Amino acid sequence: MDQSEPPARTTASGQIAAALRAQIAAGVYAPGDRLPSTRALAAERGLSRTTVTAAYEQLLAEGYLDSRQGARTVVAPGLRPQADRAAPRRTGPPPASLSGFGRRLAVLPVPPAPAPPTSGPGRLVADFRFGDLAVEDFPLLAWKRALNGALLRRAGWLGYGEPAGSPALRSALAAYLWRARGLRCAAAQIVVVNGSQQGLDLCARLALDPGARAVVEDPGYLMARHTFLAAGAKLVPVPVDQEGLCTDALPRDGAARIAHVTPSHQFPLGGVLSAPRRAALLAWARREGAWIIEDDHDSEYRFDIDPIPPLAAHGEAAGVIYLGTVSKTLSPALRLGYLVLAPDLVEVFQAAKRLADRHTPSLEQEALAELIASGAYERHVRRMRRRNGERRAALLAALSACLGERVAVVGAEAGLHVLAWFTDVPRAREAALIAAARTAGVGLYPVTPLYDPDGAAPRPDRAGAVLGYGGLDPRGIAAGVQRLAGVLDGIS
Amino acid sequence: MDQSEPPARTTASGQIAAALRAQIAAGVYAPGDRLPSTRALAAERGLSRTTVTAAYEQLLAEGYLDSRQGARTVVAPGLRPQADRAAPRRTGPPPASLSGFGRRLAVLPVPPAPAPPTSGPGRLVADFRFGDLAVEDFPLLAWKRALNGALLRRAGWLGYGEPAGSPALRSALAAYLWRARGLRCAAAQIVVVNGSQQGLDLCARLALDPGARAVVEDPGYLMARHTFLAAGAKLVPVPVDQEGLCTDALPRDGAARIAHVTPSHQFPLGGVLSAPRRAALLAWARREGAWIIEDDHDSEYRFDIDPIPPLAAHGEAAGVIYLGTVSKTLSPALRLGYLVLAPDLVEVFQAAKRLADRHTPSLEQEALAELIASGAYERHVRRMRRRNGERRAALLAALSACLGERVAVVGAEAGLHVLAWFTDVPRAREAALIAAARTAGVGLYPVTPLYDPDGAAPRPDRAGAVLGYGGLDPRGIAAGVQRLAGVLDGIS
Repeated sequence: MDQSEPPARTTASGQIAAALRAQIAAGVYAPGDRLPSTRALAAERGLSRTTVTAAYEQLLAEGYLDSRQGARTVVAPGLRPQADRAAPRRTGPPPASLSGFGRRLAVLPVPPAPAPPTSGPGRLVADFRFGDLAVEDFPLLAWKRALNGALLRRAGWLGYGEPAGSPALRSALAAYLWRARGLRCAAAQIVVVNGSQQGLDLCARLALDPGARAVVEDPGYLMARHTFLAAGAKLVPVPVDQEGLCTDALPRDGAARIAHVTPSHQFPLGGVLSAPRRAALLAWARREGAWIIEDDHDSEYRFDIDPIPPLAAHGEAAGVIYLGTVSKTLSPALRLGYLVLAPDLVEVFQAAKRLADRHTPSLEQEALAELIASGAYERHVRRMRRRNGERRAALLAALSACLGERVAVVGAEAGLHVLAWFTDVPRAREAALIAAARTAGVGLYPVTPLYDPDGAAPRPDRAGAVLGYGGLDPRGIAAGVQRLAGVLDGIS
Repeated sequence: MDQSEPPARTTASGQIAAALRAQIAAGVYAPGDRLPSTRALAAERGLSRTTVTAAYEQLLAEGYLDSRQGARTVVAPGLRPQADRAAPRRTGPPPASLSGFGRRLAVLPVPPAPAPPTSGPGRLVADFRFGDLAVEDFPLLAWKRALNGALLRRAGWLGYGEPAGSPALRSALAAYLWRARGLRCAAAQIVVVNGSQQGLDLCARLALDPGARAVVEDPGYLMARHTFLAAGAKLVPVPVDQEGLCTDALPRDGAARIAHVTPSHQFPLGGVLSAPRRAALLAWARREGAWIIEDDHDSEYRFDIDPIPPLAAHGEAAGVIYLGTVSKTLSPALRLGYLVLAPDLVEVFQAAKRLADRHTPSLEQEALAELIASGAYERHVRRMRRRNGERRAALLAALSACLGERVAVVGAEAGLHVLAWFTDVPRAREAALIAAARTAGVGLYPVTPLYDPDGAAPRPDRAGAVLGYGGLDPRGIAAGVQRLAGVLDGIS
């Protein structure tokens, strides 16, 4: 019996019926949802099954429920829930009792939630959203095999795991980083995190007190900016050009505690940090006592250039925290990333990870370890590199064929996106271009929000867009660019 | 080629061989580890397969590698890595550049890591560690079926998910909470987190600035205390007795921002918060403007008592944050928990979760949603309740038969642990008792560390231990208690 409700009926079955009616009205069970079996509900509430069956029959008779021959009882599909009394609504400013962190969060300009899957009528011809991967690129069978293999070794992972992550995964990652990135580290320097975002957040929590300075690339990765702002940091935006971060513009007052950089493939401009600037950045971090977060988010993808070892592989890289992820090779939904730390930082990062959530889910860690150790991960990465090379070629060919000199493309050597500047659309028309593209069935993402609103980074006076292509097929890419040509005709 | 290393040999195969030798020496590959296939390594480094094969043959000849007919090449099993130059070592105090959070973390008395699995010679006869579940209790087939089912619906979960969690899981949880706990909430009030620890951490981050007051139960849950201390809070320990938190002792100066409580089954004393104290606690929170974190960690397990609806199900429970988990029913390794929030807190918790790690891994959320919606979860919980009831009966019977009046047991009505006071062992001998028990093959966990060192909670002047029984079989329980009787003979 539902003890939180006053008894509205005198019989037990009447009470159950009333409780279910209220739940259906409140939307706890939606139309079409299965109800618990009478046996399950009876056992849970300590009632006889006859009592529960009587309640179900009453609701069937009243039309709340629907029961086909032999099938489980469901809420009548035609039924609409009442306006949900308990649905979240913000009735004013955030609660006064929030911490400084909470108050800062509450005023961050959180980007709109990811758009729902684009299918059915009104779906986009091509969605150039950065970070999307094609569903068919996920190595379904290999992942299933790895998961099921790990599942069977349950004695090894069912208890609490280590805060730093599964030993098997950390060993596999250490070997992988050497093979794939020329980065030599011990497994004990690795802390497994829930995607690179948790890595960023842990760095911010451990480095930044309110008022501390944090260097960000300008333009740069929005989530890094938000993470540092929520920590209470003052941002120091440093301009970026085609060789990556302009290290001459780094602050030299000793106040910066952290710098977030993307040396392998700058997000969003796509430059690869040049060798002199790598040396300058490392020297700066040493001199200022700042941590460098090297966000190696899409380094698996390089096309016309040789692999470049990460900053963290340099001999003098003591202050570099390497941040890796499988979000661009497997799926962002797995939430698997890792930090490579200087030895004297390992202990405090493990402690922070332990307080944050004890450890990353074990089964997926074991599955990834198996995937890497068996060689299947690197085979998959090579396949992904080939497929994304085809997508990239299709995109560059279509842009050249359909838009010619109306577009200037930068940053195409690596990663899963290019940046397109539309040479005959002034910057002031960027938002209009994005909106017109969406109307024409093309998902296009503006570059402007990636610039710091107070930063001094020079930039073309043209509209720009980040074109992610990892989730599209070559035909969709060509169709999307063709539509875009029509949109540009209307805008410029 | 490894660009981070100076070319030590003049041929490509010599360079590969040198790099592998160094990796083996550094422990990147441990003895017995598989090496990447020659094909994989060749593709990764852009070399011919012949070159890589030549390097492997060189290392085989030198005895670094071992290759049986047809099998993959492995590092020679007899080989010991050199002392690992890159292994973490703390050379002094934590780095000076840490934030306040980092400095507070670095001085927290972090408990030793979970002991390794106790098998082989020297394994414990019985390990009464709280929080362990029996490996054979995990519903392996049901979880595998749910995971594989979710895996196949990959189009639905492969992209970034919602910060608050999978809509299917939130709906399933809302319905489950009503059925199982009499707690009525909308799916939109739920935020899925990585186990209850992440829920605690998000609450601390959103409620506590350094210097804020946080109420904790005394004795109470160590991780709650650590989480609040790391946030910079000043703890206000409030004593606990057999009716749960002594609400008369709550602070009344308006300074407390948060209180962590376990009303369904107090950890560790095991009391169930009485109805008058529930009312008093809710009134206190309203008056003081504090959040109550209702940690419902093991509410599925109740034996001699009726189900008690949570605080959050009360009409006036606006300030209660309900914290649920599957760590005590499925496995702590899954890292799946959830918060039920007042509507006006949902938005800021979603924003905090998004910055913390974007969202909880999607596949496991989908699997749990399926397990709950199909009824398999509640069937499993009933099975677990029955099995743990048997374990509890075995423990109580053994304690009574072997120890009689030498032990006073409290808190056995619910949960997966009891608290045992050893009536003829003075408190000063508690550590000696724990050590002697371990020597005798019994894992026993002392109650003293769960008391606040500065708290005023009254307590017996006897040694006490938390006896978790969820991971043991009835025979092991009986054998462990029998050994314990011998240990007590030696100690008292």
